[in-house]
Amino acid sequence: MIQAMHELAATHLDPFLYERIAEKIAGLIQKRTFRPGEKVPSVRRMSLQERVSISTVLQAYFLLEDRGLIEARPQSGFYVRLQPRPLLPEPAISKPSLSASQVNVSELVASIHDAIARPDIVPLGAATPSEELLPVKRLNRILARIARESDGEEHSYGVIQGSPDLRHQIARRSVDWGCSFSEEDIVVTFGCTEAINLCLRAVAGPGDVIAVESPTYYGFLQIIESLKMKALEIPTHPRDGICLEMLDNAIQRNPIKVCLIVSNFSNPIGSRIPQAKKKELVQLLFRKQIPLIEDDIYGELYFDQERPGVCKAFDTNGQVLLCSSFSKCLSPGYRVGWTSPGRYKDEVKRLKLMNSLSTVIPTQLAISEMLRTGGYDHHMRRIRRAYSSQVQKMTEAIGHYFPNGTRVTRPRGGFVLWVEFPKTVDTLELYRKALEAKISIAPGSLFSPKQLYRNCIRINCAHPWNDKLDLAISTLGKLVV
Amino acid sequence: MIQAMHELAATHLDPFLYERIAEKIAGLIQKRTFRPGEKVPSVRRMSLQERVSISTVLQAYFLLEDRGLIEARPQSGFYVRLQPRPLLPEPAISKPSLSASQVNVSELVASIHDAIARPDIVPLGAATPSEELLPVKRLNRILARIARESDGEEHSYGVIQGSPDLRHQIARRSVDWGCSFSEEDIVVTFGCTEAINLCLRAVAGPGDVIAVESPTYYGFLQIIESLKMKALEIPTHPRDGICLEMLDNAIQRNPIKVCLIVSNFSNPIGSRIPQAKKKELVQLLFRKQIPLIEDDIYGELYFDQERPGVCKAFDTNGQVLLCSSFSKCLSPGYRVGWTSPGRYKDEVKRLKLMNSLSTVIPTQLAISEMLRTGGYDHHMRRIRRAYSSQVQKMTEAIGHYFPNGTRVTRPRGGFVLWVEFPKTVDTLELYRKALEAKISIAPGSLFSPKQLYRNCIRINCAHPWNDKLDLAISTLGKLVV
Repeated sequence: MIQAMHELAATHLDPFLYERIAEKIAGLIQKRTFRPGEKVPSVRRMSLQERVSISTVLQAYFLLEDRGLIEARPQSGFYVRLQPRPLLPEPAISKPSLSASQVNVSELVASIHDAIARPDIVPLGAATPSEELLPVKRLNRILARIARESDGEEHSYGVIQGSPDLRHQIARRSVDWGCSFSEEDIVVTFGCTEAINLCLRAVAGPGDVIAVESPTYYGFLQIIESLKMKALEIPTHPRDGICLEMLDNAIQRNPIKVCLIVSNFSNPIGSRIPQAKKKELVQLLFRKQIPLIEDDIYGELYFDQERPGVCKAFDTNGQVLLCSSFSKCLSPGYRVGWTSPGRYKDEVKRLKLMNSLSTVIPTQLAISEMLRTGGYDHHMRRIRRAYSSQVQKMTEAIGHYFPNGTRVTRPRGGFVLWVEFPKTVDTLELYRKALEAKISIAPGSLFSPKQLYRNCIRINCAHPWNDKLDLAISTLGKLVV
Repeated sequence: MIQAMHELAATHLDPFLYERIAEKIAGLIQKRTFRPGEKVPSVRRMSLQERVSISTVLQAYFLLEDRGLIEARPQSGFYVRLQPRPLLPEPAISKPSLSASQVNVSELVASIHDAIARPDIVPLGAATPSEELLPVKRLNRILARIARESDGEEHSYGVIQGSPDLRHQIARRSVDWGCSFSEEDIVVTFGCTEAINLCLRAVAGPGDVIAVESPTYYGFLQIIESLKMKALEIPTHPRDGICLEMLDNAIQRNPIKVCLIVSNFSNPIGSRIPQAKKKELVQLLFRKQIPLIEDDIYGELYFDQERPGVCKAFDTNGQVLLCSSFSKCLSPGYRVGWTSPGRYKDEVKRLKLMNSLSTVIPTQLAISEMLRTGGYDHHMRRIRRAYSSQVQKMTEAIGHYFPNGTRVTRPRGGFVLWVEFPKTVDTLELYRKALEAKISIAPGSLFSPKQLYRNCIRINCAHPWNDKLDLAISTLGKLVV
C-alpha cells in the first residue's frame, strides 16, 4: 500500500511538494479551520488525500513543527500548538544538486583532528567522545589483567576475522538492534573507518558513484576520495534521514553502485530513519540491486526509551553491510570496530587480510570482556544520560548566544549538533576566526563534496558542560555577527 | 666507473651472460689452469676483462660456488675448492617473463594463514615467528603496567602519525641501518602490511605497473591485486637480490610506476642486496624518477656480525619509502609497523587518516618501552642466534631427506628457506598432500603473479627445532617422490 503510494508519489516527483503541503496546512491553521489544541489530519490520511508518500507528509509536518505551528504527541498524532515554541527551528531538508562529484575535502580535516591533541583548544570540531565519559579505569583494569594472564596467544597474528570471543559478544547483542548474527557473520576491523573502507572496496571500484546523505560525515568523503570513487549527495531531512523519492530518482539518472548512510543519529545532522522507512529503503535498494553500507556507530547513544533498530534487520538477501565500532562508546584509542557484511563477507575478509592482516588482540579481548560482564550496559546508561543532557545544554546556549535566523538540529541520540546560520555567514571564515580564539569547530562545507553548507557548522557536544564551553559558544556567537 | 660498466653491460644485455662466464671459469678449473686452493680472477678484474658489470661476475661466481667448484674467503676473494661441498646447491637467478600481470594469488593464502591457528598442523607455511621466541612475558608486564598507570590518554584517538614516544625510539635506532631519521619522518601503521598499502597508494593508482622481485612475498601480490595494480617480475638472485640490468631493461620497456622490494633477507629467497648494489639501485631509480618502496622487516634478523644497511640510507631526495614492523621480532598480535616515506609523508599521513584513522595506543607504548629500556637488544641477540641455528638445522634436514636435484637457499638472515625441486615436482599437489599429513607449506606459485615456481616451496624455520619438525621434513621428502 505504502509501496504503491510511493510509486505514485515518484511519478509526480517534486522536492518542494512537502513545502506546498505544509503551506496548505499552515493556511488552514491561520484560517482557524484547525484551532490550537486540535488534531491536524493524520499522516496516513493526508498521504492518501494528497496522493503523496508518508515521508512527504512527515516532512511537511516536521516543517510545521519547526515553525512552531504544530507539535507531535506520542502515540497520538500532530496537534496545533497552543503557543510558539521557544526552541530555534530545525534546518530544512537539504537540496544538493544531483550530479556526482570528485571528492576533495581533506585539507581542513587533518587540522581539525590535530586540534584534538591541543589542550588549549576548546574541542567543538572533531566528533570525539570525552575521555571523562569513557570507562577508562575499568578498561585499564581489564587490559592489565589480560596482559598479566596472557599465555602468548595475544602475540600471534590471530584469526583474520577477529577474536571469536569478541565476535560472539557482538553477535549476542545484535538482537538489540533487530538482527540475529552468529559470530561467523562478523569481521572485526580497526575502527569503523577500516570497516567502511573494506566494505566500499568490496562492492565498488575507482570511478564508481556512491550515494551519500547530504550533508554527510566528512570521513566518508575522504575515504571515497582516497579510493578514487565519486560521491552523489541525496537530500536528507534532519529528522527522518535520506529522502527515498530523491534517492529513487537519483538511481534512475545515475549509475549508483552503493548507498552509504548513517541510519541512526547521523553525523552531522542527527537524523534517525524511522523503522518503516528503513524497511522501505532496504526494499528500494533490493529492487535496484544496490548494496547498502550502513554505519550504526551512534545507534547505542539513544536518548529515548528504545534502542533504534538498523536497516540490516530488514535485509533478507545479504545486501546490507552493517558497520560499527566501540570508538564512540568505550575507547577510540583501542581501534576496535566491526562489520557484518552479508553476502560480501568473503570479499571483506580477503580485503582485511590485505589491508592490515588482522586486528590487535589485547584490545579486542578487553572490549569483549567489557561486553560480557555487563559493565558495558551500566556504562552506556550513564553516558546516554550525559550526552542527552549535554546536547540539551548546548542547544540552549546556542539559542541564547547565536544570532537571529540561526537554526539547529534536535537529535534524539549521538552527540553532535548541526547549526545553520543565515545565508550570509561564511563558516570557513568563522572556522579561522574561531581557531584564533582557540575554539575548534567543523565548518559545514566539509560535509559536502560540492562544499555546500558554507553557512553551517557542526558542534561536538561530547564534553561535559562547563563555563569554558558556555564562554566558547558566547564567543562564537559574537564572531558570527 | 662501475656505473659506466653497468651501462656498457646493459648495451649487450643477456640474462644468460653470467652462465657463460661461469662456464668459462669452470672450463679453466677443469683444465687445471686454476688448481684447487688457488685464487680465481678477482670480480673487478673479470668485470673489466669481460666488459660486464660487477653483478654479472658475482652471479657467475655464486653459480660456481653452488656447483661446489669455488668458495668465497672473507676479505680475500674466490678460491678453487679442495673438495665438493656437502650443501645442496642454491637455486639460480630467476627468469620470469618480462610483461606485467594482473595479480590473483589469494585463493591459497587464507587457508595457509588459517592453518596457523590449528595446533594439529606443523606450521611450515606462513612466515610467522614462533611464540616461544617472542618476549611474551616482558611485553605482557610492560602492557599491564601501561594499562594500570594510564591516565586516559591511551583511550583517545591519538596522533594520526603515531605515538611520538615510539617514533622517537625508531628514529634513535635508525642510525643502526644507515639513516638519521627524526620522529617527524616516521608514520606508525598497523603492521608492515598497512605501511606497504599506504605507500603503494601514495605513489601509484589502479592499472599502474609495480616492479617486484621474482619470486616475491605473496602478501605484496595480494596488496597489488586488491589495489587493482599490476605486478612486473624482475629476475632476482637468491644471494644478492634484484638484477639491476634486468630492472633497467624492464624500465625501458614498461611504464613502471614504483619498485617494491625486500632489501635484506627477502621473503621468500633470503637475498640480501650488497651495500654497493643498494646504492646503485637507488641511483638507477633516481635517474628514472621511480620511487622505491623498501620493506626491511627482516633486516634486524641478521646472522653475521653486522646489521645490514638499507637502500633508504642512499636516498638523497626522499624517493625511498622505507617500511618495517615489529611483527617478526616482538609481537605480530600488537600490529605495530611504521614507514619513513620520504617526500611522500604528507600523502601517506593523509591515507593513514582515511584508512584506519590512527594506530592502537597501548601496544605502541609497549613496543616503545621495550626499545627504550634495552630489553629489545638483549632479546634480539637471543633470537638472531636461534633463527640462525634453526635455519641451519632445517637446511641439514632438507639435505638429508629431500630428493636428489633439490636446491635450497642459504640466507644470512630472516627465517625462511626457499626450496627448488626438480622441474617435474608439482608443489600445489605437494601442498595438498602435505596438508592431509597435517603439514602446512607455502607452494612456490604463490610467490609469482604468473604462478611460476610450481616446483618450489617456502619453508618457515621460525620454530625451535624438534623431532616433530624433523619428522615433518622426512614426510615431505617422501611425499615429493
